[in-house]
Amino acid sequence: MKRRTFLQHAAAVAAVPLGRFASSTPFARGAGVNASAPLHVNGARLNASLTALGEIGRTAGGINRYAYSDADLAGRAYAIGLMGDAGLAPRTDVAGNIRGRVPGTDASLPPILIGSHVDSVTDGGNFDGPVGALSAIEVARSVREQGVRLRHPLDVVIWQNEEGGTIGSKMAIGALTEADLDKVARSGRTIREGTALVGGDPARWREAVLKRGDIACYLELHIEQGGLLEKAGLQIGVVQGIVGLRWFEVTITGFANHAGATPMDQRQDAVLAAAKFTVAVNDAIRAEPGRQVATVGRMVVTPNTTNVIASQVVLTVDLRDLDEAKLARFTAVLEQLGAGIGRATDTTFKFARLVDSEPAMADPRVQDWIDASAAALGLTRQRMPSGAGHDAQEIARIAPMGMIFVPSVGGISHSPKEFTRPEDVVHGAEVLLNTVVAADGGFPGV
Amino acid sequence: MKRRTFLQHAAAVAAVPLGRFASSTPFARGAGVNASAPLHVNGARLNASLTALGEIGRTAGGINRYAYSDADLAGRAYAIGLMGDAGLAPRTDVAGNIRGRVPGTDASLPPILIGSHVDSVTDGGNFDGPVGALSAIEVARSVREQGVRLRHPLDVVIWQNEEGGTIGSKMAIGALTEADLDKVARSGRTIREGTALVGGDPARWREAVLKRGDIACYLELHIEQGGLLEKAGLQIGVVQGIVGLRWFEVTITGFANHAGATPMDQRQDAVLAAAKFTVAVNDAIRAEPGRQVATVGRMVVTPNTTNVIASQVVLTVDLRDLDEAKLARFTAVLEQLGAGIGRATDTTFKFARLVDSEPAMADPRVQDWIDASAAALGLTRQRMPSGAGHDAQEIARIAPMGMIFVPSVGGISHSPKEFTRPEDVVHGAEVLLNTVVAADGGFPGV
Repeated sequence: MKRRTFLQHAAAVAAVPLGRFASSTPFARGAGVNASAPLHVNGARLNASLTALGEIGRTAGGINRYAYSDADLAGRAYAIGLMGDAGLAPRTDVAGNIRGRVPGTDASLPPILIGSHVDSVTDGGNFDGPVGALSAIEVARSVREQGVRLRHPLDVVIWQNEEGGTIGSKMAIGALTEADLDKVARSGRTIREGTALVGGDPARWREAVLKRGDIACYLELHIEQGGLLEKAGLQIGVVQGIVGLRWFEVTITGFANHAGATPMDQRQDAVLAAAKFTVAVNDAIRAEPGRQVATVGRMVVTPNTTNVIASQVVLTVDLRDLDEAKLARFTAVLEQLGAGIGRATDTTFKFARLVDSEPAMADPRVQDWIDASAAALGLTRQRMPSGAGHDAQEIARIAPMGMIFVPSVGGISHSPKEFTRPEDVVHGAEVLLNTVVAADGGFPGV
Repeated sequence: MKRRTFLQHAAAVAAVPLGRFASSTPFARGAGVNASAPLHVNGARLNASLTALGEIGRTAGGINRYAYSDADLAGRAYAIGLMGDAGLAPRTDVAGNIRGRVPGTDASLPPILIGSHVDSVTDGGNFDGPVGALSAIEVARSVREQGVRLRHPLDVVIWQNEEGGTIGSKMAIGALTEADLDKVARSGRTIREGTALVGGDPARWREAVLKRGDIACYLELHIEQGGLLEKAGLQIGVVQGIVGLRWFEVTITGFANHAGATPMDQRQDAVLAAAKFTVAVNDAIRAEPGRQVATVGRMVVTPNTTNVIASQVVLTVDLRDLDEAKLARFTAVLEQLGAGIGRATDTTFKFARLVDSEPAMADPRVQDWIDASAAALGLTRQRMPSGAGHDAQEIARIAPMGMIFVPSVGGISHSPKEFTRPEDVVHGAEVLLNTVVAADGGFPGV
């Protein structure tokens, strides 16, 4: 089966024309291997590992390796085994993140960090996380096998509990509180209990906190989780940044009354007000160019009875954009829309902020290296925001960050239907590998 | 306390100018009392009984005399006691409905039936049902006390379990099945168990079924449960009929996807489609004159998560009008709106009919008698539909039916805030009394 996958892959890769680096690319002062040709990974091995991991936590409903579950532990054990095979001397740090290393030639330099996660959402797929995590391992293994001499150490990380709120990477930058550790995760265990369970030491987690300067840069390969690349027929997304996010809880209060006996012009109908608001938000977001998104994904109606005009709706709005100013402007638009619809429908709108996260911009130099690496590999690409959150958004607070996207078939994610083609996985891993080489040359002063 | 209520009431009634019957009204050949002046009830006694009943089943959340509960049993016992005091020789029939009688002068004539219910919704008020039920008892008592000679027997009925779906009146016309009897009511008891509990005999309930001709007519006084009368500043509603009703369950299917990573133009958002549909239904219903109403009161979202575009919404539409043809036309409009919005939002709409009930028209002669009675009492009034369902809609299938509405303060019902002013209760009871007299003269051939 591995053999067959390899042959299938080889045929697919052969169709991709290989590019050549222009002498002005950062690769010119990169690794000790032939700097004029891009490096490759063992794509068959990478996809075989992805397939093997996909058997762990698989249920009738999808992949279920949510953090601190037995399947999560088994997935992590599989990754640790793979890192051992790759010669990365893996260990779990006090924050519960798995770390491995390929030493560099200059022991004074901070490491280049690459990685992602292997935990999943409930009833999810096998590509969100694992594509980046196993590719990072494959990239490090390729560096060792191919004798690529890097000046910086190359560190691989598998972050714990990404899907529960980028917990491992938040711990890595010291962004969690002790109270956060007592929050209960999907598994029913607290983050504190889970961190101990996966081999961390929750009493000492702050010893793993990274300061600015501790790592040279952070690179993460991930599936797009949207349909932009597929729709555009492109192979690689060069991530410009991870969008900032505002979560609002909107409480709309009307008045419960009889659905038969109350004339249409004497109602204070919270469902109607919520519907008008949902439509108005959608119209406002789509009315101007840009990649801003807003979603009403949750709506709870009271009393939620067929023959009673609703007295209350609590709904959420998820607003995202790469531009903080645009987020602020649309926040004001939402509140204006709510106030106007409230007046028109004789209801009241109350807004609460549930979550705020700032946009996390990718380092422009790192974007250029990703772009150049993809070009050298003959891959088509575009710059684009990440609409989803990732561990990279945390690490961007303390180090230059870059992300590489590969297409999601049908734009589907967090679903058992999530799928990224094997050749796209390999493309992503190879862009990651060559970006590491570029970064190694690109940080001469660090 | 009774004394004070009486005095307050006497002052209120004194302000109402008394009218005189024109010689052409049915009252001219009515009862043996002075046919030129309307009759009155003991308003203080009526309101005192309403106050006393309101202490039964009262909780912090409102009146809770839902069918077959201890409070319902206590409320029924109170009504039976009152009927005994009124000399009506009350009994509970095999269908669990309470019946009492004032004999008429012609034993060959079928009874005029008046009544309502004393059960309540959860956390309801003390006026929906009791105003009509206790007024019917007061009217029968007044007929006896005042020596009003009626040709027809005057029967008082307290229907069981109105709020659970007009169960007692459905049984009275034979409209329930044995399977219906096994449905579980709000109390946790089946209708079969509940019917036995209140003193009926569920094995023999069909013995209580009324055929056409078994009763001369049915009259019910009820609170409006809407705000039309109050808004118009009127005292009495002459009900033209009880609206027909269609309940639709609409299942809107989209596709769950990432709220951050999925561009606005690549979504299949079931919440957005549901919102557009809700707004469109409201616009369509309000776009033409008439008293038709449509309500989206229930909406269940899947997966109902802030950061996931909803894959499904199941919502209900409650559509009502007095005109069957209009109901059919709006049914088609709903389906067209759903199909169009489905195409526009890349979702699918599926419609299921949950409940269908035909409009139940009030007998035009009975409407005229109610109108004339109100006029004779100097009360302002208008003809109007009942948007709410009532036991009267069932009895209308086998007998001429009429309903009298009195104002609900603020149009509020099914709520602890439900309230009808004591003077309006008395107005309603007096219209009922005089309509009985008119009906007794108005059915000479029965």
